[in-house]
Amino acid sequence: MNKIRVTIWNEFVHERENPHVAKIYPGGIHNTIATSLRAHSELEIRTATLKDAGQGLSAEVLDHTDVLLYWGHAAHDEISEEAVVRIQQRVLEGMGFVPLHSAHWSKIFKRLMGTSCALRYREAGERERVWNVNPGHPIAEGIGDYVEIAESEMYGEPFGIPMPDEQVFISWFQGGEIFRGGNCWYRGSGRIFYLSSGHELYPIYHNPGIQRILYNGIRWARPHGRPDKMPIHVPVENAPEKIETRGPQMHDASGRLITSGK
Amino acid sequence: MNKIRVTIWNEFVHERENPHVAKIYPGGIHNTIATSLRAHSELEIRTATLKDAGQGLSAEVLDHTDVLLYWGHAAHDEISEEAVVRIQQRVLEGMGFVPLHSAHWSKIFKRLMGTSCALRYREAGERERVWNVNPGHPIAEGIGDYVEIAESEMYGEPFGIPMPDEQVFISWFQGGEIFRGGNCWYRGSGRIFYLSSGHELYPIYHNPGIQRILYNGIRWARPHGRPDKMPIHVPVENAPEKIETRGPQMHDASGRLITSGK
Amino acid sequence: MNKIRVTIWNEFVHERENPHVAKIYPGGIHNTIATSLRAHSELEIRTATLKDAGQGLSAEVLDHTDVLLYWGHAAHDEISEEAVVRIQQRVLEGMGFVPLHSAHWSKIFKRLMGTSCALRYREAGERERVWNVNPGHPIAEGIGDYVEIAESEMYGEPFGIPMPDEQVFISWFQGGEIFRGGNCWYRGSGRIFYLSSGHELYPIYHNPGIQRILYNGIRWARPHGRPDKMPIHVPVENAPEKIETRGPQMHDASGRLITSGK
Amino acid sequence: MNKIRVTIWNEFVHERENPHVAKIYPGGIHNTIATSLRAHSELEIRTATLKDAGQGLSAEVLDHTDVLLYWGHAAHDEISEEAVVRIQQRVLEGMGFVPLHSAHWSKIFKRLMGTSCALRYREAGERERVWNVNPGHPIAEGIGDYVEIAESEMYGEPFGIPMPDEQVFISWFQGGEIFRGGNCWYRGSGRIFYLSSGHELYPIYHNPGIQRILYNGIRWARPHGRPDKMPIHVPVENAPEKIETRGPQMHDASGRLITSGK
Repeated sequence: MNKIRVTIWNEFVHERENPHVAKIYPGGIHNTIATSLRAHSELEIRTATLKDAGQGLSAEVLDHTDVLLYWGHAAHDEISEEAVVRIQQRVLEGMGFVPLHSAHWSKIFKRLMGTSCALRYREAGERERVWNVNPGHPIAEGIGDYVEIAESEMYGEPFGIPMPDEQVFISWFQGGEIFRGGNCWYRGSGRIFYLSSGHELYPIYHNPGIQRILYNGIRWARPHGRPDKMPIHVPVENAPEKIETRGPQMHDASGRLITSGK
Repeated sequence: MNKIRVTIWNEFVHERENPHVAKIYPGGIHNTIATSLRAHSELEIRTATLKDAGQGLSAEVLDHTDVLLYWGHAAHDEISEEAVVRIQQRVLEGMGFVPLHSAHWSKIFKRLMGTSCALRYREAGERERVWNVNPGHPIAEGIGDYVEIAESEMYGEPFGIPMPDEQVFISWFQGGEIFRGGNCWYRGSGRIFYLSSGHELYPIYHNPGIQRILYNGIRWARPHGRPDKMPIHVPVENAPEKIETRGPQMHDASGRLITSGK
Repeated sequence: MNKIRVTIWNEFVHERENPHVAKIYPGGIHNTIATSLRAHSELEIRTATLKDAGQGLSAEVLDHTDVLLYWGHAAHDEISEEAVVRIQQRVLEGMGFVPLHSAHWSKIFKRLMGTSCALRYREAGERERVWNVNPGHPIAEGIGDYVEIAESEMYGEPFGIPMPDEQVFISWFQGGEIFRGGNCWYRGSGRIFYLSSGHELYPIYHNPGIQRILYNGIRWARPHGRPDKMPIHVPVENAPEKIETRGPQMHDASGRLITSGK
Repeated sequence: MNKIRVTIWNEFVHERENPHVAKIYPGGIHNTIATSLRAHSELEIRTATLKDAGQGLSAEVLDHTDVLLYWGHAAHDEISEEAVVRIQQRVLEGMGFVPLHSAHWSKIFKRLMGTSCALRYREAGERERVWNVNPGHPIAEGIGDYVEIAESEMYGEPFGIPMPDEQVFISWFQGGEIFRGGNCWYRGSGRIFYLSSGHELYPIYHNPGIQRILYNGIRWARPHGRPDKMPIHVPVENAPEKIETRGPQMHDASGRLITSGK
């Protein structure tokens, strides 16, 4: 099997601006995650950030990515429409997408969901338990009853998402809330796994349980049987006078045609 | 029970430009549908077209609409980003949305689905059978085994949509294809029913079976238990230092905040 | 609109044997629920218990029931196979089914789910919050952010059910668990709503929030567009030599044919 | 990776009694399928039939099976309740299950679905097209737009199943019907893939496209991250007076406890 090409994208803002965050994630959240994933030889890891060419989300990067991890928060609004459309297109073609924590509020996640993606939240350093509600799911492999996080940001319901296609984890919070925080969707030929746990103020990506979930999530989200192209041939048995085909074209928000060649 | 306020929106292009279409739908597709629906006293029907103020999709119109039927084809690209965002917001708040036929390719449908919404098609005037695969579903009420359409445009799979939350109809075409053409989704507090049958070149909206499906679809899609507002209060039991809330805000494609007031 | 014919079935064992339970539910859980529902004039309420003819689940009862509420715990094993098959058949024909609390472990619920229906539990009189994760759902109408229950039995994940078709409520428990406790499924022409809150040792069915959820659940689960019969005619366009049809027959566990006439 | 242990179970009745069927499948349907699958070195294939000890479905067989293919038709009623419960239990524990063609009417399929599993059918040797509606799905890997079957038995809608969790194929039939014939469900820790094409009177299992689908289906349905046991420990933070746990026990149809030890 070929290696799974993983790109860990991080806006990389808080770690540079907030000393408390920098202490927890000296090289940035992306590098902490990258280090944990490099233990797995079937993964080929690279990182990218907002400061890179093409905001780190260029066609060159995405075309060589099987699974994209995405951490964003402070800079959601800076992401270009072109980058959003590129990611969406690649997901529909089969690239796995793993938005993390506050990426629930990113343009690309909202674009793929079609919903508000709103939630309630509270920063109070309270205990979180990430309950495994689907023990036979590949993303739950090796995870016991739950992953305990001593201090976490609360994310609470209602979460403005389409009903997940597969529900793997639901979080319990000390302050009295619950949250659907480990959710799978299928969109086009791509797979999406959202994991809510991961606030920058707490060392959550150092937690071995969370690291295992990310590894499992990448393996689940990797491309599966992606077709080389969408079919365009139309069989004819009743003498149609004309045949037209419509490929998986995509428009940007201004109505401009972005792609056609698939 | 209050009446269900239905707005039938039609781009109204083909009927004005193509004499063949004008003959089938002299007052436009919207008026043919309106006439059939006015037989039902619990519905309050109005129509709107692209030529109206705000493209017929102004806040005034949408705020007084419980269920929006939407037929578009030639003018998809003319619809403003503002109108798309308004419809999306209203759907998430609970407005029913019934995109018809080639509206699969509209900006608003793609926005709500998050996928390519691509399909294959052929105009050959071939026979279609709209099979009822869900006889106990409210939208199938009064529909027998299938609705037969003597001449139709073929729409074929793969259809680039998220798996429907409820599958009501699947079409058979004489030329050898099948199509998931009667599909339900839940998005936010709103319900979406897509019906594929309805090409402008054939008198499909004069078909009593299709008229019945539209009536059923409206009843199914009407708002159900829509909350006055999304909850923003956060209970506190463990002395959080600060509480912030995030309403169902929505950004347009350029990152500009569109709404907040819910 | 015809009235919705509701049958509240209760095994009625704990209330007769345990003085503590009898004090909370003097006439039995079924009568407490019945009293609260009789406030709604569109409902026609009757009750039935295990001691009635046909275990309270005779064909006569079920044939005149639009929605069946079902509370059982101690006597699951006493329910006859014939009663289980009758309920299943009626659900598939379109009868609404609302299993309550420990009915997760009833034969009929396991039969309809096809899964273990196992869960974890703890009787510790701890606080439960029934979170509304689907504010636009009909069963959440009039319910705010959550329903608070001061003392409850804990039910915890993993819950051995098929993924719900619609998730309405998820419970938080003081002791550290979460539970998918307000779940909808479609089976055949029937609708199933499971509500977990409702232990006999606590006055949960006196809670106005729970009463409202039950009322909403009945309205949601009532038959919608149930067909008189399943279709058996097969259209023929290519000279098939013979046509056979297969109705919605059902076998009991010993392989005996139970029904055929639908 | 360990080999995937596949058991192909066949009732093996028609091939012994009907010379026409015997000519198409001289060693039985199971051996034709086995031969095609043995080309794949990661599979370890064995076959079993109704005449074997324990009806070919003994605990010994099932405990050493990762994925069970199951073809039945004439002998559905002969299958013992014990065998049905064993298969169900193993599926919930994580064994893949691939019921074929007329196995839609088997006791075990009905047991796992909870629904009627009824359909319409016609034996007329007509053309079938198995349309790929999910090109990115692992079971569609290597399958183009559709698999064409020159002569097939028609299976038609409505099909009395729970909505599939994933829809991969939908069949078109020459005579005018459609059928959801390539369907995935998750039940407990197990995966179920139903494939409808496969009537004994036609050489459908000799079709390379169908053989590829079966191979893909096995790979998809193999156990993924199956837990060694279901969790039974209950965390305690608020001094519960007593803790009881409930494992994934299962009762047979007469209420007898079958398993407990998981």
